[in-house]
Amino acid sequence: MNTISSIDLFIPDIKTLLQKKDFKELKKLLLEINPIDLAEGLSRFTPDQQILILKLLPPHRMMAVFEELDLKQQQFLFDHLGDEALAPLLEDIPPDMAAKLFKKFPEQIVKRMSNLMKKEKIDTVCSILNYPPQTVGAVMQSDVLTLSPNMTAKSALERLQAWARTRIAEHITMLYVTNSERKLLGGVPLQSLIGAPTVMKIRDIMSPVSLIKITVSMDREEAAKIFVRYHLNSAPVVDDENRLVGVLNVDDIIQIIEKESTEDIQKLAAVEALDEPYFKISFLKMVKKRATWLCVLFLGEMLTATAMGFFEYQIAKAVVLALFIPLIISSGGNSGSQAATLVVRAMALKEIAFGDWWRVVWRELAAGFTLGSILGTIGFSKVWIWSQFSDTYGPQYTMIAVTVGVTLILIVMWGTLIGSVLPIFLKRLGLDPAVASAPFVATLVDVTGLVIYFTVALLTLSGTLL
Amino acid sequence: MNTISSIDLFIPDIKTLLQKKDFKELKKLLLEINPIDLAEGLSRFTPDQQILILKLLPPHRMMAVFEELDLKQQQFLFDHLGDEALAPLLEDIPPDMAAKLFKKFPEQIVKRMSNLMKKEKIDTVCSILNYPPQTVGAVMQSDVLTLSPNMTAKSALERLQAWARTRIAEHITMLYVTNSERKLLGGVPLQSLIGAPTVMKIRDIMSPVSLIKITVSMDREEAAKIFVRYHLNSAPVVDDENRLVGVLNVDDIIQIIEKESTEDIQKLAAVEALDEPYFKISFLKMVKKRATWLCVLFLGEMLTATAMGFFEYQIAKAVVLALFIPLIISSGGNSGSQAATLVVRAMALKEIAFGDWWRVVWRELAAGFTLGSILGTIGFSKVWIWSQFSDTYGPQYTMIAVTVGVTLILIVMWGTLIGSVLPIFLKRLGLDPAVASAPFVATLVDVTGLVIYFTVALLTLSGTLL
Repeated sequence: MNTISSIDLFIPDIKTLLQKKDFKELKKLLLEINPIDLAEGLSRFTPDQQILILKLLPPHRMMAVFEELDLKQQQFLFDHLGDEALAPLLEDIPPDMAAKLFKKFPEQIVKRMSNLMKKEKIDTVCSILNYPPQTVGAVMQSDVLTLSPNMTAKSALERLQAWARTRIAEHITMLYVTNSERKLLGGVPLQSLIGAPTVMKIRDIMSPVSLIKITVSMDREEAAKIFVRYHLNSAPVVDDENRLVGVLNVDDIIQIIEKESTEDIQKLAAVEALDEPYFKISFLKMVKKRATWLCVLFLGEMLTATAMGFFEYQIAKAVVLALFIPLIISSGGNSGSQAATLVVRAMALKEIAFGDWWRVVWRELAAGFTLGSILGTIGFSKVWIWSQFSDTYGPQYTMIAVTVGVTLILIVMWGTLIGSVLPIFLKRLGLDPAVASAPFVATLVDVTGLVIYFTVALLTLSGTLL
Repeated sequence: MNTISSIDLFIPDIKTLLQKKDFKELKKLLLEINPIDLAEGLSRFTPDQQILILKLLPPHRMMAVFEELDLKQQQFLFDHLGDEALAPLLEDIPPDMAAKLFKKFPEQIVKRMSNLMKKEKIDTVCSILNYPPQTVGAVMQSDVLTLSPNMTAKSALERLQAWARTRIAEHITMLYVTNSERKLLGGVPLQSLIGAPTVMKIRDIMSPVSLIKITVSMDREEAAKIFVRYHLNSAPVVDDENRLVGVLNVDDIIQIIEKESTEDIQKLAAVEALDEPYFKISFLKMVKKRATWLCVLFLGEMLTATAMGFFEYQIAKAVVLALFIPLIISSGGNSGSQAATLVVRAMALKEIAFGDWWRVVWRELAAGFTLGSILGTIGFSKVWIWSQFSDTYGPQYTMIAVTVGVTLILIVMWGTLIGSVLPIFLKRLGLDPAVASAPFVATLVDVTGLVIYFTVALLTLSGTLL
């Protein structure tokens, strides 16, 4: 059974066969390995061996391995595979993959690729390159079989059979029906086509309306959300005039969903989206993606020193107040982080829209009051009970306990309010709501929280401690 | 075009037709609405209207709408739909859906359901109920068509045609080949079957090995990761003896992936997984899921007050030190949050395994040193330059600047170290790495960070300020 680390099991055998130069056996063995596993293990062989291994694979397998490699490895292979090995590879390369390489490779390699590719495919690749990279156009399959409404089920199946023979299996689940101008009329699930009486007309099998269409210029993240919402396997992609230009499949989408979640998670921790796996991203790049936000937060947090400067006299007079500063500001920060994260995720899942902002505000103020009261009660009790046995908080301990308790209620309410409202309004301004990261909200609440704390202290303790 | 809020467009028309009692037109209109949109809009009608609307739908459509409703609505409908409307619904109900309802509904309704269902289907439902809910067994499709290796492509297609006629389209992309003991031999992509010469034997079309198998007792989250890694559309599910027991489809998996990401995001913000959409979860439940962690963090953060208690004398002597406390501890917390989140996500994506822990440690210590040096330099400069124009930090400003700068380097290194190592070791102990949430790491770093700060201060300032 193939499991995630299965390549480890194959490597010794591959090495033995390479040493024995038993290429016939090696070829057989390589076919047993999932191309994605093989791609992962490839870097453990010498460059010469890598070339040898790839050349032993049938072209569509070589392509499947190649797709999974990183840019550096891909470029190395292109430089070292002869034209006779590259030509079949480029014949099988899906246009969207070729487009990716065209974009990333140096001009010289692109030129060599173009020379080995059919004019027709180059045209498709160029049309993909014209779509902005974040749009559906850049990820869809543009090679689509279309049916016409007047065909019978039999002739449609025959057409499909002819079409399928010249292509690597691409998991078709739905066939699309267009008129003579390529305008989309409907869709036929492959299974319905197979199950239909042979003389039945396509127009009578197809479902015209419940078809969900994706436009070619749509953001692919948006398309991913439609896939999740409607449990889709594939969807037709149309241009502004409802002409079918491609198909989007769920296996393209699943990668986007996973990637978007990773980006959101990273942004919520105040890291710019890494866009690469943890160990693959270069050290400097990673540090840069973390440093930017860390510096912004640091500069913001400097205001805490300024804010505390205003209350330096009070701190000097009642040092006991300083002891609770980390406890109080972190409680505001934590409740704010919770609220921000819940709201940002709910917005990503389309559970909350801008119009809901006042419902969110009420819910979060109520939640903040409840949570703040819980923490406030614990805080009050701790100071008050402790003071029955100890002198730490001095003779004014009751008023100190009240100050801590009241501040906690206010600061937790303030934190949940900021944390929940900020992402909604960031989105309204056209910004990414995930900018309202946990640390960002915490910093905002830290600065303002200090002002709340010392204001409460001035009100409760003036005349006694202050 | 159907978009996410398209139901809003239909509601006025539906209401008009309901008033006019024009059920023929209404029936036509309802067929145009995607069942998922219809389910979302259903609660905007009166209970009587809801029943009426559902009764106008063909059974498989009614099922599709029904699946999307929440438990309360489902139960209401079951109570109010007569047996004559329920019977066809239950005939079409997929066994996995029926299993979910059996588990959630009160005994009385389950009894009524069983009476209306075929014995065969009840058996399937019971076998699903025997699988623990988090496993693949509980989400897979157990109704699978199998081929035998000696069939011709023609007879396989005929068998598929007969099978497909009796079922609602379920997006088949792969057919599975078993021997007489139902042991899995291989798979045939539907497209290859369609494209194959009619007399060709299935054994010559099927791919035996690159097939990735999922076991029925596997955690479904684990299965989801295999789907993402291998870009799968579907996978066969086998029991311990390699017998085919079901199929897992990507559209079942995509919901799991999205749900797991949401859970991870919520846990990283120190919220227990909500398991329900933001507005659907009851207020008390939501508060509870937030309060637990907030209280734990609060109790942990109380140690900051204790830690600061030890340094109360130093603070009283040099109040200026207190001004930098929020700035310093939040910098440690922020860098720790970043590290923890990056590592937790990388572990979820299988980019980091336990064996990598020392590589992570080195990387994070280096990153921490670099990031700490940046913040330390900013911090040092701010204090030093400011002191050229102001008296805020007193005559010992250079040593205060050094204290702040050095502490920042140490605390950021400490934060990244804790943040990166903690999730790895939590996982090693069999705990959820996402427990190392941003606020949790921040709290740990707050407490220890204060000790670092005052220790550095004692070393640099003793004899002068302290």
